[in-house]
Amino acid sequence: MGLSKNKVKWITSLQIKKFRQKFHKFLVEGDKIVQELLLDGRWTVEELYGLPEWLDQHAGLIRNRSIDVVEVSAGDLEKLSAMQAPQQVIAVVDMRVLPRLDDLLRSDLSLYLDGIQDPGNLGAILRIADWFGVHHVFLSPETVEVFNPKVIQASMGAFLRVCTEVCDLEAVKSAFPGLRVLGADLHGENVFAVNGLTPGTMVVIGNEGGGISPSCQGLLEGRLTIPKQEGAGTESLNAAVATGIILAALRNKFVG
Amino acid sequence: MGLSKNKVKWITSLQIKKFRQKFHKFLVEGDKIVQELLLDGRWTVEELYGLPEWLDQHAGLIRNRSIDVVEVSAGDLEKLSAMQAPQQVIAVVDMRVLPRLDDLLRSDLSLYLDGIQDPGNLGAILRIADWFGVHHVFLSPETVEVFNPKVIQASMGAFLRVCTEVCDLEAVKSAFPGLRVLGADLHGENVFAVNGLTPGTMVVIGNEGGGISPSCQGLLEGRLTIPKQEGAGTESLNAAVATGIILAALRNKFVG
Repeated sequence: MGLSKNKVKWITSLQIKKFRQKFHKFLVEGDKIVQELLLDGRWTVEELYGLPEWLDQHAGLIRNRSIDVVEVSAGDLEKLSAMQAPQQVIAVVDMRVLPRLDDLLRSDLSLYLDGIQDPGNLGAILRIADWFGVHHVFLSPETVEVFNPKVIQASMGAFLRVCTEVCDLEAVKSAFPGLRVLGADLHGENVFAVNGLTPGTMVVIGNEGGGISPSCQGLLEGRLTIPKQEGAGTESLNAAVATGIILAALRNKFVG
Repeated sequence: MGLSKNKVKWITSLQIKKFRQKFHKFLVEGDKIVQELLLDGRWTVEELYGLPEWLDQHAGLIRNRSIDVVEVSAGDLEKLSAMQAPQQVIAVVDMRVLPRLDDLLRSDLSLYLDGIQDPGNLGAILRIADWFGVHHVFLSPETVEVFNPKVIQASMGAFLRVCTEVCDLEAVKSAFPGLRVLGADLHGENVFAVNGLTPGTMVVIGNEGGGISPSCQGLLEGRLTIPKQEGAGTESLNAAVATGIILAALRNKFVG
């Protein structure tokens, strides 16, 4: 018999920011990432739409929880999916923010994303943060929303483990007066030559086209640069690539 | 009066691989990247479709060259464009490969891409290669085509400066017997601790989901790994991000 039109409308409405914010829920799609979500006890999964085989196979993860589980056909999943190749399962999840921000000053490194626009970039940055053990990623109000389905999918589950919060940089600095805020920039100190990193260092990554905004520029205490080969014509690196290189440099400079 | 239907059909046909390969031509779109293309003397620009203002403003770059220049309206450009936001100008370019491969053994670092699928990733990798002065990027036959419009645009002009060639890894190794081939892998040597890099080192980057293929695995002389923070849940980094970190590490380890 399939899903009702109203159900389809409800779920697909969560592909749109306005409705995610109204209902405080978001979508997570795909075998592996939904398994991770169910294993991670901190999130409230409210509804689960899956192929019968998938639900059977993962019954152990679902049972004894107050999840509204619905068996659907592949055709129904295609109607619900925000992805090009529909997956076996979609979850509707409550949009609670993890309250771990008090740890910020004790953590050595954190990120502030100043106007990242591309969902694929934000997802990749969350993966990078998770890979290098950076637990706090702040987003400027202009940055793409973390619960955008493309961000969730590109993060490959990293959104489960990295704490994100939307906040002005000025407000972050007021709340954590010990922070040392460094911007990723084309004209700063060689990131591979930085010395004496202290806990409470925050790296600011700017917008893909325009870099760090003027209002954030004024709040920086230093600038980090990825050295370019002499004579290279390329003017900048992709924002996620630059984030990866900077975190790798700051994390691994004491290793080699 | 606008462009004829046949003209529109001809240009948009070059958005498709089959026709690019049949006619040996590809498209380059956008103000900045077309300017770079015209300034770089090594490419044959055959046709140019631009807004009158753009063509006026860049008359100096166009004059005295045998380019078929056509003034078009914004509406026409929209019909021709492969991009979400149409640009001011589109060029049809001859698909000649730059013959600089004989330099390979003298260059310190090169890349081999083993099955990269995402055009955005390939474009970002060309930017990274250009940034770090890596002039040769080989592509396995399974890798996305470099003349795909999304690759060209994501490369931000780096395709003009980085020499690419489609080739089996085995054939590259036979042609350049002095090459040292290292794979990017989850279980190799810490890339930040690598010592004694010699000219003629080639780094192999695997497919986004599956990593390095079995046939290439057998041709590796070593493996490089980006160390992960203990306890991190993320299983891998985006392929372009990993490429950026590896090239940065190999380039900059002697700096800090």
